[in-house]
Amino acid sequence: MEPTHIEHIGIAVESLEQAIPFYEKTFGLKCYSVEEVKDQKVKTAFFKVGQTKIELLESTDPEGPIGKFIEKKGQGVHHIAFAVKDLPVRLEELEQKEVKLIDRTPRKGAEGLNIAFLHPKSTFGVLTELCEEPVK
Amino acid sequence: MEPTHIEHIGIAVESLEQAIPFYEKTFGLKCYSVEEVKDQKVKTAFFKVGQTKIELLESTDPEGPIGKFIEKKGQGVHHIAFAVKDLPVRLEELEQKEVKLIDRTPRKGAEGLNIAFLHPKSTFGVLTELCEEPVK
Repeated sequence: MEPTHIEHIGIAVESLEQAIPFYEKTFGLKCYSVEEVKDQKVKTAFFKVGQTKIELLESTDPEGPIGKFIEKKGQGVHHIAFAVKDLPVRLEELEQKEVKLIDRTPRKGAEGLNIAFLHPKSTFGVLTELCEEPVK
Repeated sequence: MEPTHIEHIGIAVESLEQAIPFYEKTFGLKCYSVEEVKDQKVKTAFFKVGQTKIELLESTDPEGPIGKFIEKKGQGVHHIAFAVKDLPVRLEELEQKEVKLIDRTPRKGAEGLNIAFLHPKSTFGVLTELCEEPVK
């Protein structure tokens, strides 16, 4: 698969209104984008740290994936995302290796990326996302 | 604070013997180092993905921090580490901003880095480490 870098780290927070100023004032990072991803029932805020983005995720619905995650585990790291090339091919390879996929084909994620999630049961408990920049 | 990049992502696993081949064969990453950090009661394995390392952590003692983490939360992301400059100064600044510190002064971590942990209560549930390369 050979990911090129960590594209982002997704962090579940209860409130972007509280978490964004913390990341800005305490860690000195700049929030460059806030975006709602309706089908995931989240509002996201992005910060850049070197090659990697921090993606803060606030649930817009208690029944959404982030709402349920926080209810069960509390705030914290929700997923990590690897940047890969040829995502559809990578997914086929992973399926052949019997990795359990949440998304068997890429779908649209935040920032217009093509994304797919792998199931944490196959990845030692880490919800893992693969991302690829779409061809422009 | 302005971290330069994500230095590493620490992932708690039950068994390095099982997790290392997975990261190598499935994700195509290369384990370049296995190291025991006795005072943390862990054995670590490192992989590089762009600027960032994946640090797999296996507990050597059920009473150690990783043993307790897995017992409570299961396998998964344990901490994220930012690379910073002038770590002692950064810790003073954070203390002035009333961030709760686990380590008020730097100590030695894996790979010879100077490190300090911030308390997840202050960082929206994310156990956060700061790292600095020692002066050679």
